[in-house]
Amino acid sequence: LKVEVINTGHGAVAGSVVNTHLKYLAEALFPLGLRIERQVTVPDGEAIREALVESFTRADVVLVTGGLGPTTDDITREIVADLYGLELIHDETIMRGIAGAFCAARTDHERSRAAAGPAPRGGHSFAKPTRNRTRSLLSARLSRRAAVAARVFLLPGPPRELKPMFTDSVLPILTSAAPQNAVEMRVFRIAGLGESAVEELVGPQLLSLGLELGYCARLGEVDVRTIGSPGLLQKAEALIQEKLAGHIVSAGGHSLEKVIVDLLAERGETLAVAESCTGGYIAHRITNVPGSSAVFLEGFVTYANAAKSRALSVDAKLIAEHGAVSREVVSAMAQGALQHSGAQYAVATTGIAGPGGGTEQKPVGTVYIALATRGAGTRVERHRFATDRESFKVIASQAALDLLRRHIPPPAAS
Amino acid sequence: LKVEVINTGHGAVAGSVVNTHLKYLAEALFPLGLRIERQVTVPDGEAIREALVESFTRADVVLVTGGLGPTTDDITREIVADLYGLELIHDETIMRGIAGAFCAARTDHERSRAAAGPAPRGGHSFAKPTRNRTRSLLSARLSRRAAVAARVFLLPGPPRELKPMFTDSVLPILTSAAPQNAVEMRVFRIAGLGESAVEELVGPQLLSLGLELGYCARLGEVDVRTIGSPGLLQKAEALIQEKLAGHIVSAGGHSLEKVIVDLLAERGETLAVAESCTGGYIAHRITNVPGSSAVFLEGFVTYANAAKSRALSVDAKLIAEHGAVSREVVSAMAQGALQHSGAQYAVATTGIAGPGGGTEQKPVGTVYIALATRGAGTRVERHRFATDRESFKVIASQAALDLLRRHIPPPAAS
Repeated sequence: LKVEVINTGHGAVAGSVVNTHLKYLAEALFPLGLRIERQVTVPDGEAIREALVESFTRADVVLVTGGLGPTTDDITREIVADLYGLELIHDETIMRGIAGAFCAARTDHERSRAAAGPAPRGGHSFAKPTRNRTRSLLSARLSRRAAVAARVFLLPGPPRELKPMFTDSVLPILTSAAPQNAVEMRVFRIAGLGESAVEELVGPQLLSLGLELGYCARLGEVDVRTIGSPGLLQKAEALIQEKLAGHIVSAGGHSLEKVIVDLLAERGETLAVAESCTGGYIAHRITNVPGSSAVFLEGFVTYANAAKSRALSVDAKLIAEHGAVSREVVSAMAQGALQHSGAQYAVATTGIAGPGGGTEQKPVGTVYIALATRGAGTRVERHRFATDRESFKVIASQAALDLLRRHIPPPAAS
Repeated sequence: LKVEVINTGHGAVAGSVVNTHLKYLAEALFPLGLRIERQVTVPDGEAIREALVESFTRADVVLVTGGLGPTTDDITREIVADLYGLELIHDETIMRGIAGAFCAARTDHERSRAAAGPAPRGGHSFAKPTRNRTRSLLSARLSRRAAVAARVFLLPGPPRELKPMFTDSVLPILTSAAPQNAVEMRVFRIAGLGESAVEELVGPQLLSLGLELGYCARLGEVDVRTIGSPGLLQKAEALIQEKLAGHIVSAGGHSLEKVIVDLLAERGETLAVAESCTGGYIAHRITNVPGSSAVFLEGFVTYANAAKSRALSVDAKLIAEHGAVSREVVSAMAQGALQHSGAQYAVATTGIAGPGGGTEQKPVGTVYIALATRGAGTRVERHRFATDRESFKVIASQAALDLLRRHIPPPAAS
């Protein structure tokens, strides 16, 4: 099955939004053995028609995103209907639902029976209305009479609407249509090593096993994606476990924060954080995980020095003597968070996010991170992440959370 | 000038990277009055050829990214050369430089003199080698003999290489070639109104002015983009100011958090936040703004009830009587944050992010937000944002920050 994606919207080509659809769709299609062969972005309007015609001549599945909203520039529905002589109708079932959306699918699964081209032909097509969980759209569906070589799915632009609709309504159709293959994928999330270091440690040996291999580096972490038969993947995992050991955050692509919340929940332990330079981002990451309220007690975002002293009992003399960005202060912050919150673990950060505030001895990007563990003392690390302000917060939070992860004992084998 | 973008690379269509080129290029071209009319992503290989042929028939300028690296799947250069009967040559000047890259440009600025189509034609074209500041590439350039209707620029894939090359070498050529036009863009960021409501209030009247209009809805905010002559934009602004008034966060596309930090900095005032359900996300947003340390004193991420009582002096009886998610508790949280931090303003949130924890009276998505202002009492709002956990945090933080924005007095006119 050849899959193409058409993203529509003035915002997309004008650069006001970054296209995250492609990444999402590619990753969702991968387990079915489907790869996207081409993606195109066009503004709202007649360019959509041209892109559709082009894709119909090449692809088996065309995923169109955007242009389903209620405003007058949302005309994807109308263009598709016009192109194939379809009638747009209001569906009372959908209208009565929470909200409506729509999805047009060709029921004729034998490609050979469907004619390519825009001429309407009866009987082979129908419209599959799907529910949109989060937004009220002008509800409509295509009546029968379309004959196109490709199955077309019209999806809403906002990711929070697109994702549930794609998962609930499109994936099942594609799953039944996709060729069966025994290839599987396993994603290992690695922290504390750069992409080149990871590749050097495992790349050549993994490739010599004969599997498909991919790397995806993000701020402070690298995903190693292994693709192959179950037997090959088992060999790959043994190799990765041996070579990367403590750097493996998860073998299922789970985030660092989810791994930490799950570990602590299993152990019945709790966590507090004390943040200066990361400004609440560590607490945000932890509280993004459903169920985190069972393990996360409290975050102290102590930006001002007075707050460090008052909320975390950091001695003002310590700050005066060593500076707020210092080994001594980060250590006292972690200990204060542990003491005030009553948690088993407390993580602390203090650093210079920039763009201002750097000195020769402590340049922009300098960060101290600490982990205080009840009954087991305090560990401090110094790093330098010279980058922009927001990336700095991400990488520093990553280093702090990974310091914590490495020091939570693994759950006892049952 | 019609501009199209071709992004190449297996990683791009496989979803291992998010395409940020389009946003960057669109924003860089906008001041020249140039819009990207179409963007396509294709894997490395022969699909590049097809995309090039298509773009050449439509566009005046084609920007190609990726496939210029040293590995064997980097074949953009070769495909372009083959397509137009061009010779790839090694250039000693480039080889001797820090690193080399290349860029093919048609020198004949009169479109009418250039033939569309792939046939080589002599004399009108040349290759403009450009320096790549960060990476050593196989250096090559197109020799003269290409005649294509479009100017083609081949750019490296990594953003840190693409950006300087585009700015230094491509923009000057396009600036001299771009038609002079006086069209400008102004983006109004709107909070507290949905996309449909915004369009209903200003859409028809803005369109009747004859300007180009676009909407971009995100969680909790809508951007209204007006494009036209300076005179038209002035009329549009007057209309938007009249109809949307207090909902306008900024007239320059600035984020809510930046507007707040700038307002407070100008007034010499300070802020604290007390977060339960938003889990540090408000503090994170505020501290993303460079210079926020001048106005942001402290964040209290009080997830546990004990933390609310200890850190914010919320009476435990109040929590027992009304529940942690209540008007009374959010009010006490904001007052506690004000008192403990010493700030002029304190914003507080408490709610049920879900997926668990909802009740009939307080279903998942319920949130109370409060603003305590020194010397001016405390305001409380109740909202319900029924969505997924992460979206809930975004929308709730948006409502809380907008409550604050609306109650900071505007700076005195000088």
